[in-house]
Amino acid sequence: MRSAQGELVAAFEDVDGEGRFTPHSWTRSAGGGGTAMVLEGGRIFAKTAINVSAVWGEEVPPSLAAQHPRAAGQPFFATGLSLISHAVNPYVPAFHANYRYFEVGDLWWFGGGADLTPHYPFLEDVVHFHRTLKAQCDARSPSLYPRLKRTCDEYFYLPHRSETRGVGGIFFDQLTPLERLEAAGEDGRPGGPVWQADLAFVRSGLGAIGDAYLPLVEHRAQTRYGERELRWQRLRRGRYVEFNLVYDRGTLFGLQTRGNVEAILASLPPHAAWEFDHLPEPGSREAKLSDYLRPRDWLAAETRETA
Amino acid sequence: MRSAQGELVAAFEDVDGEGRFTPHSWTRSAGGGGTAMVLEGGRIFAKTAINVSAVWGEEVPPSLAAQHPRAAGQPFFATGLSLISHAVNPYVPAFHANYRYFEVGDLWWFGGGADLTPHYPFLEDVVHFHRTLKAQCDARSPSLYPRLKRTCDEYFYLPHRSETRGVGGIFFDQLTPLERLEAAGEDGRPGGPVWQADLAFVRSGLGAIGDAYLPLVEHRAQTRYGERELRWQRLRRGRYVEFNLVYDRGTLFGLQTRGNVEAILASLPPHAAWEFDHLPEPGSREAKLSDYLRPRDWLAAETRETA
Repeated sequence: MRSAQGELVAAFEDVDGEGRFTPHSWTRSAGGGGTAMVLEGGRIFAKTAINVSAVWGEEVPPSLAAQHPRAAGQPFFATGLSLISHAVNPYVPAFHANYRYFEVGDLWWFGGGADLTPHYPFLEDVVHFHRTLKAQCDARSPSLYPRLKRTCDEYFYLPHRSETRGVGGIFFDQLTPLERLEAAGEDGRPGGPVWQADLAFVRSGLGAIGDAYLPLVEHRAQTRYGERELRWQRLRRGRYVEFNLVYDRGTLFGLQTRGNVEAILASLPPHAAWEFDHLPEPGSREAKLSDYLRPRDWLAAETRETA
Repeated sequence: MRSAQGELVAAFEDVDGEGRFTPHSWTRSAGGGGTAMVLEGGRIFAKTAINVSAVWGEEVPPSLAAQHPRAAGQPFFATGLSLISHAVNPYVPAFHANYRYFEVGDLWWFGGGADLTPHYPFLEDVVHFHRTLKAQCDARSPSLYPRLKRTCDEYFYLPHRSETRGVGGIFFDQLTPLERLEAAGEDGRPGGPVWQADLAFVRSGLGAIGDAYLPLVEHRAQTRYGERELRWQRLRRGRYVEFNLVYDRGTLFGLQTRGNVEAILASLPPHAAWEFDHLPEPGSREAKLSDYLRPRDWLAAETRETA
């Protein structure tokens, strides 16, 4: 996680050309801590956070125990990297990725994913993003991408707006579910072949972040914009805030367990706006977004042709 | 509720001098509807919403039934007025009030309250606000203000920030608790003497909104400000968003039951901002706010003297 953090910091600073990440380290009295690397007010990135944490304790927190009954009362170790990027230019999509590892007693699992949230969608960008993630998944198994894409569409959904947060990506709670781990017997031990394969997938996921997102940043950051696009960006960032504060499990878990507030809320955009009953002009570039906020097979031939 | 809405719209328009409220009506297929009156981009008020709704049905929603077991399966009627005001000038505090009435089978109750959220606090303003609400409460019973003030301090609290949303006010779930209603026997019937007394209190609460808040608006709207104050206002509005989306029961209830989204989220400020780990300069006017975000007896003599 720390080495991926270092590589991502370098890659994002390279694209920005001016902005630099500042480290903010914190410790957790009950065991562990983390470092949030934050870039604010860059040339390209308005607010990008790349956070790593590793925490441990003698007994899992109640919310984790409720999710995994076998975990109750067990010692635990959890580590993760999360990256959230909000750019200056409204044509550059927001991006989020998170990869994490849990060890609880003799159980362990990897979770994670990556997803894209454009304000002004471009089909070719969405296709590039999904194609990159699909290639990462296909290297493990051809059945993986459809499963992780569906989970992502279901997770990043705002029921009160009847729309997805963005155009999706991949998401998984447990790469190898606990049931399958048990069935694997000795091969399922931490450090064993199943664990090694999962670690390799997470490693490739961390590696795919740059390939999936940064070309879109470099491409769209040149597009000219004005107050109209900035207003739309702020309104869409309002929806991002709604998702993160109302529905995101990671955010709510963090707030409830009194994690490091600044690191948890580093995902919030630099600015957001709410206007009463704002609806974009029918047929406008802004109105086009709503077509992108429904789950779709972005890589199907007909999707590309009807662009 | 409708007549209070009309009076408040007139009073707020009068103070603004330029901005006008626009009505947005909605209906609920299962029974009822409402009208949101919204003023955006005024001279004094950046975003003020005064919403009235009245909804009914053959069976209470599950979340209400869970709160009041005797209500399960009963027909219901609910009406309320909520007012949220965000001003242009950062020296003008934000304000929120909500008064509501429920009838469920043979049960009924009034709920409500009013609270103030300054960005730049002035003790004399806070004292005026609380003194006005205390006078309203004292007219009913001298024990009422301390109880409703405490409930307000407890409710408008952000545990992850260890601070209250603002400087409080009054808040009550049930003015006459259901237990006391039962004890009142025939006097506790809808329209009976207990009901009439509660209605009179809610009426006086709606009437106190103008007296408690508008003088502060008129006084502070003249204060000069610049980008520094606007930045602080946006950051503090970020906290307002955090409270409303993470903790506010009314907001979450509304979103979960698929109420009118725009009316529910009309409470969100026009703009909000999040900067990583922002801390005001020690000793600055901004730093002073944190002293005001802990429950305190604003009307105690010593509080006023150490101003």
